[in-house]
Amino acid sequence: MIFRADKLLTQLPVPKHPSSEAAAAVQELMGGKAGEMSTLMNYFFQTINFRDREAYGPYYKLVANIAAEEWGHVELVASAINLLLTGTTTRGHDPTAAPLAEALKAHNKYQFFNAGQCALPVDSMGNYWNGSYVQSSGNLRLDLVHNFFLETAARATKLKVYETTSDPTVRELTGFLLVRGSTHVIAYAKALEELSGVNVVKLFPIPELSNHAFPEAQKYIEQGLYNTLYNFTQEDISAISQIWKGPHPDGAPDLTVTNDPIPTIADLPALPAEPQLASPAADEVEPGFVQEAARRIFGKSM
Amino acid sequence: MIFRADKLLTQLPVPKHPSSEAAAAVQELMGGKAGEMSTLMNYFFQTINFRDREAYGPYYKLVANIAAEEWGHVELVASAINLLLTGTTTRGHDPTAAPLAEALKAHNKYQFFNAGQCALPVDSMGNYWNGSYVQSSGNLRLDLVHNFFLETAARATKLKVYETTSDPTVRELTGFLLVRGSTHVIAYAKALEELSGVNVVKLFPIPELSNHAFPEAQKYIEQGLYNTLYNFTQEDISAISQIWKGPHPDGAPDLTVTNDPIPTIADLPALPAEPQLASPAADEVEPGFVQEAARRIFGKSM
Amino acid sequence: MIFRADKLLTQLPVPKHPSSEAAAAVQELMGGKAGEMSTLMNYFFQTINFRDREAYGPYYKLVANIAAEEWGHVELVASAINLLLTGTTTRGHDPTAAPLAEALKAHNKYQFFNAGQCALPVDSMGNYWNGSYVQSSGNLRLDLVHNFFLETAARATKLKVYETTSDPTVRELTGFLLVRGSTHVIAYAKALEELSGVNVVKLFPIPELSNHAFPEAQKYIEQGLYNTLYNFTQEDISAISQIWKGPHPDGAPDLTVTNDPIPTIADLPALPAEPQLASPAADEVEPGFVQEAARRIFGKSM
Amino acid sequence: MIFRADKLLTQLPVPKHPSSEAAAAVQELMGGKAGEMSTLMNYFFQTINFRDREAYGPYYKLVANIAAEEWGHVELVASAINLLLTGTTTRGHDPTAAPLAEALKAHNKYQFFNAGQCALPVDSMGNYWNGSYVQSSGNLRLDLVHNFFLETAARATKLKVYETTSDPTVRELTGFLLVRGSTHVIAYAKALEELSGVNVVKLFPIPELSNHAFPEAQKYIEQGLYNTLYNFTQEDISAISQIWKGPHPDGAPDLTVTNDPIPTIADLPALPAEPQLASPAADEVEPGFVQEAARRIFGKSM
Amino acid sequence: MIFRADKLLTQLPVPKHPSSEAAAAVQELMGGKAGEMSTLMNYFFQTINFRDREAYGPYYKLVANIAAEEWGHVELVASAINLLLTGTTTRGHDPTAAPLAEALKAHNKYQFFNAGQCALPVDSMGNYWNGSYVQSSGNLRLDLVHNFFLETAARATKLKVYETTSDPTVRELTGFLLVRGSTHVIAYAKALEELSGVNVVKLFPIPELSNHAFPEAQKYIEQGLYNTLYNFTQEDISAISQIWKGPHPDGAPDLTVTNDPIPTIADLPALPAEPQLASPAADEVEPGFVQEAARRIFGKSM
Amino acid sequence: MIFRADKLLTQLPVPKHPSSEAAAAVQELMGGKAGEMSTLMNYFFQTINFRDREAYGPYYKLVANIAAEEWGHVELVASAINLLLTGTTTRGHDPTAAPLAEALKAHNKYQFFNAGQCALPVDSMGNYWNGSYVQSSGNLRLDLVHNFFLETAARATKLKVYETTSDPTVRELTGFLLVRGSTHVIAYAKALEELSGVNVVKLFPIPELSNHAFPEAQKYIEQGLYNTLYNFTQEDISAISQIWKGPHPDGAPDLTVTNDPIPTIADLPALPAEPQLASPAADEVEPGFVQEAARRIFGKSM
Repeated sequence: MIFRADKLLTQLPVPKHPSSEAAAAVQELMGGKAGEMSTLMNYFFQTINFRDREAYGPYYKLVANIAAEEWGHVELVASAINLLLTGTTTRGHDPTAAPLAEALKAHNKYQFFNAGQCALPVDSMGNYWNGSYVQSSGNLRLDLVHNFFLETAARATKLKVYETTSDPTVRELTGFLLVRGSTHVIAYAKALEELSGVNVVKLFPIPELSNHAFPEAQKYIEQGLYNTLYNFTQEDISAISQIWKGPHPDGAPDLTVTNDPIPTIADLPALPAEPQLASPAADEVEPGFVQEAARRIFGKSM
Repeated sequence: MIFRADKLLTQLPVPKHPSSEAAAAVQELMGGKAGEMSTLMNYFFQTINFRDREAYGPYYKLVANIAAEEWGHVELVASAINLLLTGTTTRGHDPTAAPLAEALKAHNKYQFFNAGQCALPVDSMGNYWNGSYVQSSGNLRLDLVHNFFLETAARATKLKVYETTSDPTVRELTGFLLVRGSTHVIAYAKALEELSGVNVVKLFPIPELSNHAFPEAQKYIEQGLYNTLYNFTQEDISAISQIWKGPHPDGAPDLTVTNDPIPTIADLPALPAEPQLASPAADEVEPGFVQEAARRIFGKSM
Repeated sequence: MIFRADKLLTQLPVPKHPSSEAAAAVQELMGGKAGEMSTLMNYFFQTINFRDREAYGPYYKLVANIAAEEWGHVELVASAINLLLTGTTTRGHDPTAAPLAEALKAHNKYQFFNAGQCALPVDSMGNYWNGSYVQSSGNLRLDLVHNFFLETAARATKLKVYETTSDPTVRELTGFLLVRGSTHVIAYAKALEELSGVNVVKLFPIPELSNHAFPEAQKYIEQGLYNTLYNFTQEDISAISQIWKGPHPDGAPDLTVTNDPIPTIADLPALPAEPQLASPAADEVEPGFVQEAARRIFGKSM
Repeated sequence: MIFRADKLLTQLPVPKHPSSEAAAAVQELMGGKAGEMSTLMNYFFQTINFRDREAYGPYYKLVANIAAEEWGHVELVASAINLLLTGTTTRGHDPTAAPLAEALKAHNKYQFFNAGQCALPVDSMGNYWNGSYVQSSGNLRLDLVHNFFLETAARATKLKVYETTSDPTVRELTGFLLVRGSTHVIAYAKALEELSGVNVVKLFPIPELSNHAFPEAQKYIEQGLYNTLYNFTQEDISAISQIWKGPHPDGAPDLTVTNDPIPTIADLPALPAEPQLASPAADEVEPGFVQEAARRIFGKSM
Repeated sequence: MIFRADKLLTQLPVPKHPSSEAAAAVQELMGGKAGEMSTLMNYFFQTINFRDREAYGPYYKLVANIAAEEWGHVELVASAINLLLTGTTTRGHDPTAAPLAEALKAHNKYQFFNAGQCALPVDSMGNYWNGSYVQSSGNLRLDLVHNFFLETAARATKLKVYETTSDPTVRELTGFLLVRGSTHVIAYAKALEELSGVNVVKLFPIPELSNHAFPEAQKYIEQGLYNTLYNFTQEDISAISQIWKGPHPDGAPDLTVTNDPIPTIADLPALPAEPQLASPAADEVEPGFVQEAARRIFGKSM
Repeated sequence: MIFRADKLLTQLPVPKHPSSEAAAAVQELMGGKAGEMSTLMNYFFQTINFRDREAYGPYYKLVANIAAEEWGHVELVASAINLLLTGTTTRGHDPTAAPLAEALKAHNKYQFFNAGQCALPVDSMGNYWNGSYVQSSGNLRLDLVHNFFLETAARATKLKVYETTSDPTVRELTGFLLVRGSTHVIAYAKALEELSGVNVVKLFPIPELSNHAFPEAQKYIEQGLYNTLYNFTQEDISAISQIWKGPHPDGAPDLTVTNDPIPTIADLPALPAEPQLASPAADEVEPGFVQEAARRIFGKSM
C-alpha cells in the first residue's frame, strides 16, 4: 500500500514557448516501451510477485523502493507535458472563435480531444501503453538483467528527448530523469554484481555519453542525487546498502543509502483552467443565455 | 509522489485448493477494462492532470486519495492470484518430471511461462491492460460520471467473480473489494451530487444486489469500511467531508472521513520459492553436476 | 441511413445442450478476421466511400445491399451465441451458491464477466474485432478481389465451425450462413467477371466442398436462398441483375434479383432473465433484506 | 435486420478549403473511443443481447432505435471526411507528377495509402477502432449509466472538434451531431430516471456549454431535432414515450416521440473519381500505351 | 533454413534531400497490412505449414521461393528508409545544441527515439506490424486467392507511395517493387489458373495503371525482372515452370523460370555513424571530461 | 538477401500422442515476447539498420549470422506444432460427423479455424506477435544488452515449456533450442565483454539450471552445438572468432567458429493432408454428388 504526498520530485520551470510539438514528443517518456509507466509497472509487479522475500531481502527492498520512486517520475513527466500544452490554444468561452485550431496541427491529438491539454498513457506515436511491456518472470537474475536493460533503454530515450529542444521545461525534466534513471541503471547492475560477482557496473554508461555532458544535470549531481538511494517507503531501507555501495562508475561520490526523502521535493505546478476545453468546467457563454436563446427560438409559450 | 508501506490492505486466507482456473478468472479484476489497474490509472491521471485545483479542492483531494487506495487494491488482487497459483505445480529440481504439467491445462499460460506462477497485467482472456482504458478529459463532471460508471462496472465484475467459486481466497478478496469499491461508487455519486444537486447516490447499488448479501463483506461493513473514507496520503483530507457526508444508501452508518489509515492493514502473504520455475532461482540439480556431466561427455582433456 | 426491423433472418432452434464451449467457438464467426462484423464493416465503408457512384451504379448497389444484409448476419451469430449460453449457469438469487462456476471452465470468460452470458465483439481467442480488418481502397477491382477473398475465407470458417459439433443451433446457423455467404462469394466473383471478362465464378466453391454436403443447408437452397439476391434496402435494386445473372456455379437455379425481402424472416428468440448475472436486473435477495441486515449489524440507533 | 436507404441524415456543405488536417481530426468522431462507431456498436450489442425484452419493452425499443440512428451518424462522419479530402491532391493520370505530395504532410496517411482519400475505422491518431470500446453487461442500469457516460464523452469530443476550425463542413457536421447526440444523452438519463426516480436529466449539459452557443445547431433545434425521437425502425416506437417525455433540460420544447422519420434527410454528396488514387479505377495513361511501350522495349518479336 | 548474403536486391540512390516525411511514409511498405513484412510472413507460414507437399510440389516451391525473395524486399524498404533519414539531424557530440530538433517535426518519432534514424516494424501511422496480417489456412485455393489479393493491395500501395514525391530513392525503391511485386501478383494468378482453369491472370493489372507508366520500372522490365522468376533457394526450382509459363499480361516477354539469382544484386548502402543518436556509439564529449567535471563538482577528496 | 534450403535444423520425432494442449503451449516459443519470431526480427532489424559496419565488422557479422539461424528456429517451432496437431481430429470427408470436435476443447482455436491444424504467429494466449517486441536502437551496447536479456528470457521459456510434458516432440524441440539459444546468450555476452572488458559471460546460465540437466540436450552438446557458431550465410564469418573465443561457461569445449553449416540438418517432416480441414483441398463428398443433389432438389428442368 502507499501514502501519497501532494508534491513533485523536483521543480519544473514554465516553458519559454508552449509547444504541442514538444508535448507530443515527451509522451515517449510517459507511455513508451521504455517510458516511466513501464519502469513503474515492471517494478510494481516484480515486488508484489517476489517469491522467497526472506532469502533475498535487500533485493526485494531495492526493487520495491525504486517502484515507489517511479510513481513520482510518471507524475513529473505528466507535469512537464501539461506545462508545455498550457497556452497552446486560445483561452475563452466562445466556441465559434476556433480556439482549438492548434489541435489540427498537433501531433498528439488525444491531448486535446480526449484530455484537457494534458498527458495520457500513450507514447510519442499515440500508441497506448500496455502490459506487454512488463517483465516479471520471478527469476531474480533474469528480472535484474531485464531491469538493467530497461533503465538503459530509458536513459537512451531521455538523452534523445533532451536533444530535441532547448526548452527549459524539457531540459529540466530530462536532466533530472537522466540522473535518477542512471541511479536505477547502476542499482540493477550492482544487484547483479552482488549475486554473480561479475562487475556489471563497469558497463555504465550506456549510451556512452556521461551525464556530466548535460548542464541541467549538474545541480542534481551536486546535491547527491547521482549517488544516493533515498527512501520512498515507510520502512527502514538501510539493508539496501548491502547492494548499493562502493565507488560510482561516473565519477560521483561513493554510493550511499539514506532513510531520508529525496531533497528536491517541490510543489505541484499551477495548472489554470481552460474553459475552451471545458477543463475543469465550461462556463455558459453568459448568464441567462440559454433561456434567452430558447425564448427567441420558440417564443414565450414555452 | 508516494511512500510505500510493506503491507496489504487486508489479510487473505490461503486457498483450500490451489487453482489455476480461479487464478485465470481473477485476472479480470487485475487487467480487465474495469479491473483495479484501470481504477488506479484513471484516478492517477485525473489527479496529476487536474486543472484549477484551488477552485475544486475537495474534488481534487477525493480523486487523489482514492487513486492512492487503488494501488493497494491492485496489490490485493495480485496477492490473491499468487496464492491461488502456489501449489498448482510439482515443486522440485528435476525438469524431466514434467513439473509444469498444469501449464498445459491452465487458461492463463502467461502465469507459468512468463511469470513464476504469479499475476501479470492481463485480463481473464490474456489481453494486456492498456491505456485506452483511461479517461481523463479534464472536465470534472464528465470524469466523475465516468468514474461512477467505472466503479459500478467494477462492482459488477467483482460480484460475478465472487459467484464463480466457494474458494475462501477469492471470496475474501471480492468481499473486501465489493465493500471498498462500493465506497468509491458512492463517493463519485456524492461528488456529482454536490456539483449538480442531483441525488445520484440513489442509483446505488448497481447491480441491484446489496453488499449485505455477501457474507464475507459483513465484517468489513461492521468495521466501518462501507461508510468511511480513510486517508491514503500524507495530507489532511478532512475537506473531503464537504462531499462525503450524509446517510449511506445501503443501510450502513452515516458517511464519515478520517485522517486515520484503513484499520484492516495486514502483512503480505508468504510466497515460497518455486525452484521448478526458477523463481527466484533454480538450484543446480546437484553440486558438481555440471562439471561431472561435462567430464563424462568430453573426457578429461577439457 | 437504415430502418431496423425487430426480426432475425432465420429461425434458430434452442440448443440440445447449452454449451459455453460451443459459444466460445462461434465467436470466431462474430469477431474473427473473417467473421460477420468484418463483412458488415468492409461493405459499409466501401459503400459510403464509393467514388463515381453514377458510373458504377450496379456495383454500388450490390455492395450497399450486401452490407445491409450483413447486419442481419451479425445478429444471427449473436443470437446463436446467446442461446448456447442460456442455461450454462445456475439461475437464481443466491451469490453464495457459486452460480457462475461454469465461468471458471469457460474458454470465453468475457461472455460471463463482461456480458450477461451473451455475445461480444471478440473472436474465438478473445481478441477484439478491430478496424484493421477493413479494406476500403476505393479501387473497385481491388476491393472486389478483397471481398471475394474475405467471403471465401468466411466460408471456410463457417464450414469448420459446422464440423465442431452436432448441436442443432450451431448447425442451423452455419447451414444458413454457408448458403447466404456463398451468394456473396458468387456476387463478388460475378462483379469481377462483369468488369474484366474473366470467369471468376468458376473458382467457386472454395474450399472445394459443396454446400450440398450440409443437410441443414438444403431447405435454404430449396427456398431459393442460394441463387437469389433479396432486397435489404428501401431502393429498387433491380439494376444489380446486370451483375447477378446467369447459371449458378453449384447447381442451383439461375441467379435472380428480387425487390422482395428474404423469405426466412423469423422472430427474435426469447432470452430469459439471468438474475445471478444481474441481467437485466438483480432482485434483492428478499424485500426488506437490506434494512434487516443493517439493523442486525448496526443496531436500532441507525 | 435492417433496410438501408440511400440517404444521409442531413446535408453537408462542400468545404471552403479541402483539408487533410481537418479530415485527420474528424476521424476521432469516427473511430475514437467515444466516436460514432462506438455508439453504433454499443447499442447494437445491447439490443441483440437484451434479456427479458418483454418486461422492459420501452427500454429495449429506445436502445434499438438509437442504435439504428447511429448507423446514419457514422455515414455522416464518413461523408464529412470524404468531402474534406476531395481536392487535397492533384487529380490526373500521370504518376510522375507526384500527385499525392499531400500524403507526406497528412496526419492520417491511411486515408491516402489505404483508402481513396476517404474515411477508415480509425481515430485521430490512426489507432483502429476495436471491440473493447463496447459495453454490454446485460444489467440495464449499468448499461444505461455507461451509455449516459459515452454520449456525454461523445458530446465533449464533438464540441472540441467544432472548436478546431471555421470550415463549414466540420461545423455543420458537429452542429448536427451535438444536437442529436444530446438527445441521446438525455434519453439515457430519462431511462435511468424512469428506473430509479433519480432526476439524472438535471446533470445535462456536460460539458456545461449549451448547444445554443453553436450557431450551426440552431436550425436543427428549431426543426425539433433537439426534443424529438424519430423512428429509425419499421416498428411502432410510441412506447418510448413512457421514457422520453416531460420538459427539455436545455430550454427546447417538451420531449416528444414520433413514428415519422427525421425531417433533415438529404442526398448523399457527390464524390468524384480520383484517378491518381485509382479510385474507383485508374485509366491507362493513353490507349495503346502498354503495347507501344512493350514494343519499344522488347522489339517486334513479341 | 536459410543462408544469408550480405547484399541488397538492387542499388538504391542516395536521396537528393533527406526527408523524415518521406521516411515516415515509406514505413507503410514495411509494416503496413500490405507491406513487405506481410508478404514475407504470409508466405513463410504457408510454406512451413504446407500439407501434402508431394501432391502439390510446384505450388509449394512457388510459395517457398517467393517467401525467400520477400526477405530481400524487406531489406530494400529498410535501406530506403535509412537513407532518407541519414542527414535529417545535426551530426555531432554536443547534446545541448538540440541536434534532434527534427524529431519534433517528424511524423514517425520512433525512427529517432527508438531507432538510430532507422526503420522499424511499424506502418505509416506508427502502428506495429502484427501477426493478424498472416493468412495461412492450409487450403491451397483459399491461400492463393489471398496472396493474389495481398500482392494486388501491395501493388496499389507502392503505386501511391511512388506518387508522393520525386525523390530518387523513393522512386527507385517503388519502381523495383512494382515490377517484382507484380511478378508475384501474376504468379499467384497463374497458380490459381493452373488449379482451376480460370484465366485469373487477365485481371492484371490492378490498379489498372500499367508498370510501363513508371519510368524507374523500365530498366528492370528490360532486364527481365517483369517476366522471370529467379531462384532464391538452394534447390532446383524449374518445376515452377509448370505454373509460371505462357504470355505476360502486361506486354513483357513470355514468363520464364531460372535457377539463376536475380541479376540486379548490389552492395548494401553505407550508413555512417550518428553520434548524436549514439548509433552505434556516443563518443564522450572530450577525453577526461568526466573526471574533470567530477573534480570540479566534488573537489579533490574523491 | 537470402537463399532458402528445404531443410529443418534438426530432426523432430512424431509425437507419442498428438495434443492440441501441447500445441497451444508451444506457440509461446513462436509468437511470444521471447519467442523465435522475436529473436529473428530483432536481429534482422539490427542487421539492416547497423551504422558504421566497417568499424564494428565482427559485431555486425555476429548479429547477421544469428539472425539467419533464427529463421530455422522459427521453422522448427512451427514444425513441432504441426506434428503435435496432426491426428487430433477425425480425418475424412463427412462434415456431419463433427470431425473437428477437438476444436471446441482446444486452447488455441486459431490453429483449427484459421489454419489447417498448423502454427500461426501468435503466442500461448492467442495474442498476435507484434513489432513492439523489436529493439533496434542503433546503439551497439544497448542492443547487445537487450539481446542478452532476450535470449535469456527465451531460455527461461524453453526450459518451462520443456517441463510441461514428457512428449518426445516437445522435448526434442526444447532440448535443441536450449542448446542453440544458449550459444546466442553466450555470444551476446561475449560481444559485450569484448566491447567493455566486463566478464558478462560469467552471468550464464540464467536461469541457473544447466543445459546438462536436460537429457535431450546431451547429443547436441556432444556434437558441438553448445560451443560452435556455424555459418548461416554465404560469407566468410571467421572474423566472428574475435568475439566468440575462449572457454565455455557451462563446461563444454572452447568456443569455436566454423564456416561449415550446422551438422544436424534434417528433412522436413511429412505433413499429410487433412481433408476435413480442406488442407490443402477438400474432396467433394463423391463424384457427381452436386449434380445429383441439385437434380433431386430442383427437378430435371434445371
